[in-house]
Amino acid sequence: MATVVSLEGKRKAPSLEPLLALCAEDMVRVDREILVRMRSPVALIPELATHLVGAGGKRMRPLLTVAAARLCGYPGDDDRHVKLATCVEFIHSATLLHDDVVDVSALRRGKPSANSLWGDKASVLVGDFLFTRSFELMVEVGSLDVLGVLSRASSTIAEGEVLQLVTQRDISTPEATYLEVIKGKTARLFAAAAEVGAMIAGRNGAERVALESFGMNLGIAFQLVDDALDYAGREAKLGKSVGDDFREGKLTLPVILAFLRGGAVDRAFWKRTIEKLEQRGGDLEQAQALIERTNALTDTLERARHYGAMARDALGLFRDSPLKSAMLEAVDFAIDRAH
Amino acid sequence: MATVVSLEGKRKAPSLEPLLALCAEDMVRVDREILVRMRSPVALIPELATHLVGAGGKRMRPLLTVAAARLCGYPGDDDRHVKLATCVEFIHSATLLHDDVVDVSALRRGKPSANSLWGDKASVLVGDFLFTRSFELMVEVGSLDVLGVLSRASSTIAEGEVLQLVTQRDISTPEATYLEVIKGKTARLFAAAAEVGAMIAGRNGAERVALESFGMNLGIAFQLVDDALDYAGREAKLGKSVGDDFREGKLTLPVILAFLRGGAVDRAFWKRTIEKLEQRGGDLEQAQALIERTNALTDTLERARHYGAMARDALGLFRDSPLKSAMLEAVDFAIDRAH
Repeated sequence: MATVVSLEGKRKAPSLEPLLALCAEDMVRVDREILVRMRSPVALIPELATHLVGAGGKRMRPLLTVAAARLCGYPGDDDRHVKLATCVEFIHSATLLHDDVVDVSALRRGKPSANSLWGDKASVLVGDFLFTRSFELMVEVGSLDVLGVLSRASSTIAEGEVLQLVTQRDISTPEATYLEVIKGKTARLFAAAAEVGAMIAGRNGAERVALESFGMNLGIAFQLVDDALDYAGREAKLGKSVGDDFREGKLTLPVILAFLRGGAVDRAFWKRTIEKLEQRGGDLEQAQALIERTNALTDTLERARHYGAMARDALGLFRDSPLKSAMLEAVDFAIDRAH
Repeated sequence: MATVVSLEGKRKAPSLEPLLALCAEDMVRVDREILVRMRSPVALIPELATHLVGAGGKRMRPLLTVAAARLCGYPGDDDRHVKLATCVEFIHSATLLHDDVVDVSALRRGKPSANSLWGDKASVLVGDFLFTRSFELMVEVGSLDVLGVLSRASSTIAEGEVLQLVTQRDISTPEATYLEVIKGKTARLFAAAAEVGAMIAGRNGAERVALESFGMNLGIAFQLVDDALDYAGREAKLGKSVGDDFREGKLTLPVILAFLRGGAVDRAFWKRTIEKLEQRGGDLEQAQALIERTNALTDTLERARHYGAMARDALGLFRDSPLKSAMLEAVDFAIDRAH
């Protein structure tokens, strides 16, 4: 697998571009399918959905489905991979809409969130619409095994969201519990997205297991980096503003580690700001300083690298190809966004 | 088909009891399945779900699935009818949770609503959980045709909810549009509940069409009576308090008809109270008086009887049996609740 080296001999920053380029044709079809499936005689639905889904984002999840299918030799002569990729993006979008309502978020990817533009009610209901539309798409693909994987993943996501709602203010949540939360809310869908790609290619043995593991570990790594970026001190490349998680009192790994490693004064700070959500000017900077001092940010990224390594290894059984290299580079990209 | 006649020769009020009695064994299994499927390591999920789902209600929708399956000769030697009945109740419950958030309802069936006890966030997310769990149940039943019917129904419900959100304050909504709204939000699930009963019994021809039509028309009748009861002047037998729809500015058929039939002064009243939601003391009584004077309540019930009659006729192709009689009586019950 080639490591891209620039003319200066310096390692080029890993990018999602090679994977996007290799899957470009499929992703154009996915974009088209997304637009078609958002149609409704109820005009508010495509309006609101287009604002969120139409506006891009990296489409990591559908990209995973398409890439996994192709890596398994799926010929793409029908549109099952396109439908499943669309389905996965709709599940993701539905949870984003509901999350923003639950978190009272004003911004999403640097733009006003749907709930801030159309209100909570519309966001809840259009989220429901996207959820149910995603199930219609799955059903059309016509495989009960695929349906089993995606419906269980959706159910786990929903369970994970409730778990997060319950635990978000408990500063003494152990790291293991937190890992379960992010598996539920992020990684499970990454895993399912990749797994169903293998399934429609008819690779139900080791390849399916490998791609599920690839997705799961990539998803965990992705989320941990996301958590880290929220305290990373500069406006992130995610369209997410620094300090969002902190202001919402969200418990993430940097905070968990900083709390565990801090003394009594630090712990009192975290209890006040995260558990009681009593925040004042300068608290975010103080939080960043504590996280820095306890190496919590460095170690969160270290954890992310661990899961990234597992994702990379999961692809070991596939023979080398430009697509495989691009998927490996996508893992590096997910982690190196932080730098 | 026997009409129940009391000893005095006076027609006994129609009741749901005969149908409940004939389906009692199946419904015990449905109750058990509901409890099992609400389980989650996240304690808030069964807590909140039990409050809503566990506390009963009439379970009209699962009853329809079980009754339709049995009417079609389904032997009940496996648990597919139980799973589908549970699935249908979960879809319904999920939409109730989200509706109460969207409508800011404090009461549901005369008890504090889940959102008033646990907050909007928990209701949205546990609703998502029930939605996704319902899809898992469908998938377990293992029929792609059944999945198609239920996933399309769910999608229509979600679309209907958005349509209602958009139209709820438009006092000049035509009756036809309103009918589409209640088909989407209520009748479609009744229809699907009955239709899948026929499908698992292997009756995919005329019986399936007949039961779908039975469910659809019963659902429309049921919703119209519900709408009427909100203005019926006494606390209804539904655990719904009189005037809820009015206070929320919900557009229902009694209001649509009263607006259409009223003069300029009446119309100004409806515009102020429903469209602008500017209400003051005595407005509910005034609304009831206008609805009474324009025969809007009587005619809403007349419309309900029309759909009830279509539901009854839909069962014409089934041979007489105690179960068929009980299903016909259930239609009468749905309508006569209003008296």
